[in-house]
Amino acid sequence: MIQPNEAAPAPEKSGLFPNSQRVYVQGSRPDIRVPMREIQLSPSRRPDGSMEENEPVRVYDTSGPFGDSAQQIEITEGLPALRKQWIQERGDVEEIDGREVTPLDDGYLSESHRSKAEVEGRRNRIQFFNRQQRRVLRAKQGVKSVSQLHYARQGIITPEMEFIAIRENMKLQSAREAVEMEAKLPGNDLRKQHPGQSWGASIPQEITPEFVRSEVARGRAIIPCNINHPELEPMIIGRNFLVKINTNIGNSAVASSIEEEVEKMRWSVKWGGDTLMDLSTGKNIHQTREWILRNCPVPVGTVPIYQALEKVNGRAEDLTWEIYRDTLIEQAEQGVDYFTIHAGVLLRYVPHTARRMTGIVSRGGSIMAKWCLAHHKENFLYTHWDEICEICAAYDVAFSIGDGLRPGSVADANDYAQFAELKTQGELTERAWEYGVQVMNEGPGHVPMHMIQENMEKQLEWCHEAPFYTLGPLTTDVAPGYDHITSGIGAAMIGWYGCAMLCYVTPKEHLGLPNKNDVREGVITYKIAAHAADLAKGHPAAQYRDNALSKARFEFRWEDQFNLALDPDKAREFHDETLPQEGAKTAHFCSMCGPNFCSMKITEDVRQYAAEKGVGAEEALDEGMAEKAREFREKGGEVYS
Amino acid sequence: MIQPNEAAPAPEKSGLFPNSQRVYVQGSRPDIRVPMREIQLSPSRRPDGSMEENEPVRVYDTSGPFGDSAQQIEITEGLPALRKQWIQERGDVEEIDGREVTPLDDGYLSESHRSKAEVEGRRNRIQFFNRQQRRVLRAKQGVKSVSQLHYARQGIITPEMEFIAIRENMKLQSAREAVEMEAKLPGNDLRKQHPGQSWGASIPQEITPEFVRSEVARGRAIIPCNINHPELEPMIIGRNFLVKINTNIGNSAVASSIEEEVEKMRWSVKWGGDTLMDLSTGKNIHQTREWILRNCPVPVGTVPIYQALEKVNGRAEDLTWEIYRDTLIEQAEQGVDYFTIHAGVLLRYVPHTARRMTGIVSRGGSIMAKWCLAHHKENFLYTHWDEICEICAAYDVAFSIGDGLRPGSVADANDYAQFAELKTQGELTERAWEYGVQVMNEGPGHVPMHMIQENMEKQLEWCHEAPFYTLGPLTTDVAPGYDHITSGIGAAMIGWYGCAMLCYVTPKEHLGLPNKNDVREGVITYKIAAHAADLAKGHPAAQYRDNALSKARFEFRWEDQFNLALDPDKAREFHDETLPQEGAKTAHFCSMCGPNFCSMKITEDVRQYAAEKGVGAEEALDEGMAEKAREFREKGGEVYS
Repeated sequence: MIQPNEAAPAPEKSGLFPNSQRVYVQGSRPDIRVPMREIQLSPSRRPDGSMEENEPVRVYDTSGPFGDSAQQIEITEGLPALRKQWIQERGDVEEIDGREVTPLDDGYLSESHRSKAEVEGRRNRIQFFNRQQRRVLRAKQGVKSVSQLHYARQGIITPEMEFIAIRENMKLQSAREAVEMEAKLPGNDLRKQHPGQSWGASIPQEITPEFVRSEVARGRAIIPCNINHPELEPMIIGRNFLVKINTNIGNSAVASSIEEEVEKMRWSVKWGGDTLMDLSTGKNIHQTREWILRNCPVPVGTVPIYQALEKVNGRAEDLTWEIYRDTLIEQAEQGVDYFTIHAGVLLRYVPHTARRMTGIVSRGGSIMAKWCLAHHKENFLYTHWDEICEICAAYDVAFSIGDGLRPGSVADANDYAQFAELKTQGELTERAWEYGVQVMNEGPGHVPMHMIQENMEKQLEWCHEAPFYTLGPLTTDVAPGYDHITSGIGAAMIGWYGCAMLCYVTPKEHLGLPNKNDVREGVITYKIAAHAADLAKGHPAAQYRDNALSKARFEFRWEDQFNLALDPDKAREFHDETLPQEGAKTAHFCSMCGPNFCSMKITEDVRQYAAEKGVGAEEALDEGMAEKAREFREKGGEVYS
Repeated sequence: MIQPNEAAPAPEKSGLFPNSQRVYVQGSRPDIRVPMREIQLSPSRRPDGSMEENEPVRVYDTSGPFGDSAQQIEITEGLPALRKQWIQERGDVEEIDGREVTPLDDGYLSESHRSKAEVEGRRNRIQFFNRQQRRVLRAKQGVKSVSQLHYARQGIITPEMEFIAIRENMKLQSAREAVEMEAKLPGNDLRKQHPGQSWGASIPQEITPEFVRSEVARGRAIIPCNINHPELEPMIIGRNFLVKINTNIGNSAVASSIEEEVEKMRWSVKWGGDTLMDLSTGKNIHQTREWILRNCPVPVGTVPIYQALEKVNGRAEDLTWEIYRDTLIEQAEQGVDYFTIHAGVLLRYVPHTARRMTGIVSRGGSIMAKWCLAHHKENFLYTHWDEICEICAAYDVAFSIGDGLRPGSVADANDYAQFAELKTQGELTERAWEYGVQVMNEGPGHVPMHMIQENMEKQLEWCHEAPFYTLGPLTTDVAPGYDHITSGIGAAMIGWYGCAMLCYVTPKEHLGLPNKNDVREGVITYKIAAHAADLAKGHPAAQYRDNALSKARFEFRWEDQFNLALDPDKAREFHDETLPQEGAKTAHFCSMCGPNFCSMKITEDVRQYAAEKGVGAEEALDEGMAEKAREFREKGGEVYS
């Protein structure tokens, strides 16, 4: 069955990874089926020439039905409604007609404008998604909240929570052998002395459904899952779980089309994006979002003020609570799972940005600042917070409370305006919890390394341990074109310190709109940051993959090394640039050292020698090194004499 | 003079950066001329439409004469001998004939083999460098050491030290305006409360020649500068200076040619490589090195055991002290500035690697381990350490004491073998100092984030504050193809903790040999890591460049933003992918938001509004935030009422 040297299909064609297959782990009921990607490995060759099987390795899989070769996906039909039954059987929602979609929702001032656009769209092979097939859900009259927080507080373990518990226990679900191998290694004896530095997080060895429930109930984790987005596969954001990453897509006034955005979504979940924000501006916002939602297996977030602004023709000062409220309902009915709301940008904070190096760089923050100053009134998102909470509780839309005053340069990091808003985010968090709305808080931005931890500590304290969700942060401003890297450094660090979700940054940040390759670079960079953070936190479901890959590397199982990588295609491509021959992929050497001399080959000899000669590998493992070193020096460097 | 929108020449053709010019800052004597790159900026447009000049920004420049358009470089002649006079006037060296170069030095078993190779080489346009034009220098009989450490201990400030002092004070040499702007910013008032976390380093506000001398005398910093490499422009490696980066090049048995390697060297110093290691294996090692040294403006390091191994036809067990010693002298006479020597790989440590996940992954470490086990004798580099010190002291070759037992996977990080060797590195450091040899210590490798700081702390303690020089470390093993990023994270962190030099890793690590683009990606990633570390340490000569770039970004001076970037070409290229029109580079908007809506544009309005209305920007700047927030809540959210 295992064909390690078989040429892998191009990912662009299949959407699948080489030597991988989709498996499902079933929960307590038949319709809880948690998807995982299982990577097949080739056997190891022992020094005596005999072969040893390597069990397959299972990894967390965000690609949804697109990652299952057995499923035929028709984009125009959307994905199956995985959670439909779970939502219905709770008995607290009702079907409604919902708000009528208007041309203005897509940024058109009249029906004729819209028709014209529709004709143009068809010419460009952009169909309008058929909304007739589905009814809108919302909480029944009298039901205050249908959120996972609401259920969790009542002690209810939802199917979503059980799904997540299975999903988070990747290590337990993965190859028995990988887990055993880890336990056997002397490196792991040492690891017991270095169990990860958790900065106050407490990750259990096994994630139970009850643990998921308790973390959600406490507000320390959220499960973004609008009742109108039944297509999504539940996932959790909280610092006692695997660190997650968000990707941003969205058309803009300048470039890109609906089809491109849907394809970017597929692309982003293929590489491992855990959630997706649709940041579209310009025309066709409603239609773009509908296409994305109906085909998206991960939670979708938006910044509703962007669409509201289109409805007032881009004039921030013309925004009203009524237009915004209508937009919230429009998006909640479509199934958006979390809203970024810049309710913490208070009028009195705004002037504190005037003398900054880079003022206000958040789009949402800028819009609200402009509105506040134009009317000399308090931010209407703040003054209408209670009503916003009521709306979101009725659909289980989670909040991602925006950081509209985040720093746009390292010079502005951790300043008065930023931290004043963070305090207000904390106040808004508590008020949202009262309404049973799930909450996370957005964070910076541009922060040099030594000022990152303060952000995390203040957020935990002021926002009562609600999950933190940061953009990077970028640790320097001097490298446009490489801001996935400047920010990947900060993201890994803040993930270690306790940040629950990292918003990716692509190489095009500050310069232009990301293309598919930029999205891939951004996602992989952030998967690295998240995984490095999981390792550093001592998350039990992290190191098994490093170990499996390192073992493959050490044993010159090239194909396995590629296939276990976060980006198998790039690893293979890079290898083949130097040694394109198929035989090189089974060779016991690598291009850095050539066939006659390789450190890993020599190590094999060392290992064999140590075994033959019986040179004690264990003798001093538990002894103190200091003592050994001193003793050794006293002997004058003559050992084994 | 300033032509911000003029199309820049392609870097491949000119080797120069757009809108930049070479300037020299003269020291106390005419022949101390420190090169810097001065970036010309365009004026800012004030809100009232008037223009304000931006003074040019000077940046640290490693490109040597290649970065000076006024200099004509003939590769076959080599670079001018900048330090020749300085070395001669100390009066402690003599010219000698030097060791005869043999065919074996290039890996040929006989003269006829070599001639044949020479003919082949000419056919491939590879000329053999003419060595007749220069005599070899070494310390006069009776002179114990000619090292910068030796002079520093006697209180002598060498021209090299003064050169470095000027070079390290980039901020003082740079635009007056950038410095003043920094002081004016409220962000920098805050910065005074966040002065950088230095982990025990103490960086003065101004680097004086005397400070350079004292750090070298203490062993806390080194100036690698072989007396036979007068072409180099002095630089310093120590944790109280700017963090440096090393790049590796080198042909191998599998691929690449001399010309390619020389071009990679030029390429690496163009992008900012501070030192260069020639890790060639296979044939023509001597000739490759000669070409590199004669054309290299930065210190060159090698791992002499690689060449010694070629001389015994790749059989580690056939290595002898005599062959190694001869190789050291050969390379010291050529002008190699620092040697990686794996003298800490002791016989008794080797078996402790047998049960590791990835055994021994250092090539040098593997060779010595194999030799030790084959002979069941102590490492001859360790037993001959005193003689090695004597040789290196006579040429001022610095040591980079190797970490042959560094971990090759996160599972093996911080284990017994690794730390046992580190202790021995400390012992070897002290012994080298007795001979007046400058020393740095090499470090890992593969280390998860939470285990990085322990490496730095132990190295400082056990190696008596000699500079640390680490490879990454890689913070996870799951991303082959992206190991510049997995390691860039670790590099930035350990740089912050006090690591003096970071050895770059390219995207091809573990997979193949880097090409020019990989070298560029690797260098820029490590410049980012080093700069992020300098910012976090609070180095006074770091933030001015971030500030200048952020100001340009905020003011939509696109060309200035590109030109101030670490990689101007890529920044420009990425911008042009979305908005290729020339006009877009002066437009007051960016492709992310389009022409009608842009957060930075709105911020300008906010700023103007705040100025007009006199909304107090200063009122609460110094007041406690907690108090403000409480007061605000008490008022019930009604401000300015």
